[in-house]
Amino acid sequence: MELETPRALRVLVDMDGVLADFEGGLLRAFRLRFPHDPYVALEERRGFSARAQYGALRPDLAEKVASVYEAPGFFLELEPIPGALEALREIKCMKDTEVFICTSPLQKYNYCISEKYLWVDKYLGPEFVERMILTRDKTVVSGDLLIDDKDTIQGQEKNPSWEHILFTCCHNQHLDTPPSKRRLHSWSDNWKAILDSKRKVRLEQE
Amino acid sequence: MELETPRALRVLVDMDGVLADFEGGLLRAFRLRFPHDPYVALEERRGFSARAQYGALRPDLAEKVASVYEAPGFFLELEPIPGALEALREIKCMKDTEVFICTSPLQKYNYCISEKYLWVDKYLGPEFVERMILTRDKTVVSGDLLIDDKDTIQGQEKNPSWEHILFTCCHNQHLDTPPSKRRLHSWSDNWKAILDSKRKVRLEQE
Repeated sequence: MELETPRALRVLVDMDGVLADFEGGLLRAFRLRFPHDPYVALEERRGFSARAQYGALRPDLAEKVASVYEAPGFFLELEPIPGALEALREIKCMKDTEVFICTSPLQKYNYCISEKYLWVDKYLGPEFVERMILTRDKTVVSGDLLIDDKDTIQGQEKNPSWEHILFTCCHNQHLDTPPSKRRLHSWSDNWKAILDSKRKVRLEQE
Repeated sequence: MELETPRALRVLVDMDGVLADFEGGLLRAFRLRFPHDPYVALEERRGFSARAQYGALRPDLAEKVASVYEAPGFFLELEPIPGALEALREIKCMKDTEVFICTSPLQKYNYCISEKYLWVDKYLGPEFVERMILTRDKTVVSGDLLIDDKDTIQGQEKNPSWEHILFTCCHNQHLDTPPSKRRLHSWSDNWKAILDSKRKVRLEQE
């Protein structure tokens, strides 16, 4: 009797805040461009939307901070999150494992879209460009895990196939998450254990 | 007792050859740019890859035809396929129905990515830009139907959730498809019947 080969574990990895240091890059670029304006230090960041927090600090700062991340070159110049590139390459080579980069473009998509592709090409190469998924709605992408720093991920699909692993980032680190929500605190954290446990749960369900 | 609301029917619609007239635009642009070279008339097109057929006609034409669709402006200037925009707007307004535009960028993605977004914005508006999914692998997008002119759609997921409806296009019209493969011959064809039948099959399965 032939044993069915197990279906590969599919890991979806978000880009901003997980692979590319959006928050660090934003603060640096904001301070360079508006040196006389107040800013939100990384340890003071709360909530996914930088625009909302800057706007709460002073109404005109909302537009200013948005103009920074909507500017040409912003995405392309982001630094990789420590350990992210190594982890992604390692996941890609793991047996029975698939990795996709699953990222949402800004509503003002003009520069960010091409720059996201160029960034992945530059840091990870064409075989990862092949594995990019650009979508404003991640719930319709099927996978086992979605590693993402956004605390609430919603869309058309009310029961996404993936488990959301909250990647810790300055804006979400103080959040009280329900005990059922697992976190990956950084790429030095034990991401392999999360993949392994998911693989085990899935085998039990099959 | 409360009845559970039925899950919406999710329709994924490809872009090139289904919404935007890639083949017509390619032939027109090729003849403009290379007026002294032979070309493949639309009724002679066979196989998804124009590059392969032009290369078979004369080896140097492969690069030439690719240079046409890889040029800036090519995607943006494509004409809509007759009836496509009206059908998409209609599907979007249907009860218990979701529509997404699911499109694969070229490997040379430089211009095509932004231009695909700009095209959708121009012809269908921002609410459809919200519903764009760019992916080289459509098998990992979950949906009920995928309307696509590519005859064979493969990827990491061996059992995609969608049924592929082959949208008839010059390059696939002569293909002998298995009887199980349904076709949509054009947007004047009865796409509503296909959506309805899928809805019915799904209700029976639930």
